[in-house]
Amino acid sequence: MSELEQPAVFDARLSAEDLRDAWRLLDTGERAEGFRLLDPTEGEEFFIELSTIDQVALLSSLSPAEQRFWLRALAPDDTADFLQETTPEQRAEMLAMLDEASRREVRTLLAYAEDDAGGLMSTRYARVRPEMTVDEAVLYLRKQANARLETIYYGYVLDQEQRLLGVVSLRELFQAKGNMLVKDVMHCDLVQVPEEMDQEAVGRLFAQHDLVALPVIDASGRMKGIVTVDDIVDVVQEEATEDIQKIGGSEALGAPYLEVGVLEMVKKRAGWLTVLFIGEMFASVVVASYQSQIEHAAVLATLMPLIISSGGNSGSQASTLVIRAMALGEARLADWMRVLRREILAGALLGLILGLVGLARIVLWHQVGVLRGEPVYGEHYMILAVAIGISVVGVVLWGTITGAMLPMLLRRLGYDPASASAPFVATLVDVTGLLIYFAVATALLTGTFLHA
Amino acid sequence: MSELEQPAVFDARLSAEDLRDAWRLLDTGERAEGFRLLDPTEGEEFFIELSTIDQVALLSSLSPAEQRFWLRALAPDDTADFLQETTPEQRAEMLAMLDEASRREVRTLLAYAEDDAGGLMSTRYARVRPEMTVDEAVLYLRKQANARLETIYYGYVLDQEQRLLGVVSLRELFQAKGNMLVKDVMHCDLVQVPEEMDQEAVGRLFAQHDLVALPVIDASGRMKGIVTVDDIVDVVQEEATEDIQKIGGSEALGAPYLEVGVLEMVKKRAGWLTVLFIGEMFASVVVASYQSQIEHAAVLATLMPLIISSGGNSGSQASTLVIRAMALGEARLADWMRVLRREILAGALLGLILGLVGLARIVLWHQVGVLRGEPVYGEHYMILAVAIGISVVGVVLWGTITGAMLPMLLRRLGYDPASASAPFVATLVDVTGLLIYFAVATALLTGTFLHA
Repeated sequence: MSELEQPAVFDARLSAEDLRDAWRLLDTGERAEGFRLLDPTEGEEFFIELSTIDQVALLSSLSPAEQRFWLRALAPDDTADFLQETTPEQRAEMLAMLDEASRREVRTLLAYAEDDAGGLMSTRYARVRPEMTVDEAVLYLRKQANARLETIYYGYVLDQEQRLLGVVSLRELFQAKGNMLVKDVMHCDLVQVPEEMDQEAVGRLFAQHDLVALPVIDASGRMKGIVTVDDIVDVVQEEATEDIQKIGGSEALGAPYLEVGVLEMVKKRAGWLTVLFIGEMFASVVVASYQSQIEHAAVLATLMPLIISSGGNSGSQASTLVIRAMALGEARLADWMRVLRREILAGALLGLILGLVGLARIVLWHQVGVLRGEPVYGEHYMILAVAIGISVVGVVLWGTITGAMLPMLLRRLGYDPASASAPFVATLVDVTGLLIYFAVATALLTGTFLHA
Repeated sequence: MSELEQPAVFDARLSAEDLRDAWRLLDTGERAEGFRLLDPTEGEEFFIELSTIDQVALLSSLSPAEQRFWLRALAPDDTADFLQETTPEQRAEMLAMLDEASRREVRTLLAYAEDDAGGLMSTRYARVRPEMTVDEAVLYLRKQANARLETIYYGYVLDQEQRLLGVVSLRELFQAKGNMLVKDVMHCDLVQVPEEMDQEAVGRLFAQHDLVALPVIDASGRMKGIVTVDDIVDVVQEEATEDIQKIGGSEALGAPYLEVGVLEMVKKRAGWLTVLFIGEMFASVVVASYQSQIEHAAVLATLMPLIISSGGNSGSQASTLVIRAMALGEARLADWMRVLRREILAGALLGLILGLVGLARIVLWHQVGVLRGEPVYGEHYMILAVAIGISVVGVVLWGTITGAMLPMLLRRLGYDPASASAPFVATLVDVTGLLIYFAVATALLTGTFLHA
């Protein structure tokens, strides 16, 4: 009856794959229980592959001895990422669990901002000397296979002052004659990463150059470490996630959607919604100032949703395109005039298309009404149709320009362009859109729909 | 005076870096001119690093002999990508320029959909036999350094039927004793990629496992090729770009923002905008059906922007979060109940927050009005405030639920969840939002603001 006494979620034997599949559905205790059932090799691989957030949560529910064991399984750059996510007390405690050499390395890495190239890099790269022969270099790299290096497939050629002279791949060494010198086969035209470069920019470098590893260099040209492409896949995905969540008008969640507590999620979402809600009150003020016109011609109110949404939609579209173009480095701040010219043209064309649809809609509605014996817009429907057409052109053009320029303005002021979220642009455009609409309507409809 | 006769954009000597910096600003002719000035080694590297679209454009402006030369510089998987972007005539012409072996390989790759794992893979991987000794395998890989393999750092162990038995890295071979057999040191617990797996899913596999290359397998377990992580950085970035552009309510541009012609861009943007504009007409119909209420209480119209935007914003937020969670595999279709429960809770809380702000706004406005001797909302302002508060709760809750469920519904129906763009959700929510608002207002305000 021991099975009844110990209601285990898992069988005594569990594969890493099974655990990986079930992971999302388990609570912290069940995760630790499942993890302990893995055989040690599988366990190590499983642990290393977990996201940093999951690693921290898992380790927190294990015993100190287990913590020590698993912490030592991580490479220093991963340990540093890991410790970024812990509380200061946990951090001190866990640093104490490392051996002296690792602790020193991890401390160095912790000094970098998490999002800098320095925070991404590994300090465990293979160094070769320029005067080595190719055969010596191959032998040296081969001997490093057991060392805890990030990769043995690239040898970085440094001078006495640790300045990077060049790089040579194991494959190139294989191709070269054994008695040639490293300095004669190495590449010198290197793509280098400054240590304070933002990880988003590092991701762009990798996407551009299709390389497997890039050297990180400090201001005086000294080599500090390497960033490898496998870490970059995560970075590119993370940065895109942050941008997408901001574009949607929320703060970046910073953790998988289903794992963020509902209250925490509400906190990250309520801020912007409230700001925008208050901002939208200005749109109410605009409408209120035309209240007497609306009392005389309530038809003006019925067409308000068309105006509000066409401005908001065209603005969201333009801002999203420009935010992404900036994130990819396709459009830079210096390109703002080119972007503006393109968006004025695009906005005018889009405005014309929608304006014609809007005009046609009023005319069509009126004709249908006449046929059914109940004309909706009265004898002056054509003026109303023209007023809507003109307003839509203006609103869409304005929405497009605002949407395209706002991300650039934010970048110029030192903010994240992705903060020019679809909802933010939509709200911003509503106020001016309604002003344009009521101004055009008042100008054209006075004497027909409105009293002089 | 020869300088005057030949107004060259560039000096006779040009580095790849200079050309790369200037690239975005050059027209096709200038690009070809600059490219011809590079020395051959730099030229090859430069050409390989260009985006496929740029490669096609550049090659089209070169002579057939040059085309032939540069086309042969590409690996078969890149050639296949390249040919995907050309017209059928260009494709036939360029296939004829390849040598027989490459042509066969490229044809095989072209048979895969561009976005499948099969379309991403390279067929040039290193095969080793299970009965080889470690020393033989190292020697074999070393000899392949000159071959045009994608990587020599991984040896794939195949049986007679080309079925994948395991994989061994060069580093692991270095670590093992030379007389051991490959089959005894290889890994068998492999992460494998089915050939028809979507590239977005392949990107997730890489992000999850931090690997450098993954084998691609057909339905009967035969190995077809490898996908390497350097190609995946591009894929992850491309997929995120597509999603972001769709979330913004436009079709994916498919090329860098500044390089898409304005007319082509308008074509990709006008479609959704027009559909949404027409959809928004239903919101107009809703408002029109309450036209007599608005005539009696124009104040209802002044508060419409608040309702429209709070529904749209909360809906955009929820849909964007869920779209991204689905793209990352954090939330699957099967999780829809969990997502729904979370969003009901989150939506109710967000609605309460905004509802209270809305209620407070009316009360405050009224008090300020009273102080200034011009009460805006009359003696029944409190009922109006409650009506707004309740409407906002309902609209935000509804917006959040719709926004969260729409991407899942789209996926269920076989569409891209990212099509649940911020503008689409906003438009969809407007109609129901206004219905909720006018229903609540009519129910609460009849007898005070509205006639019975």
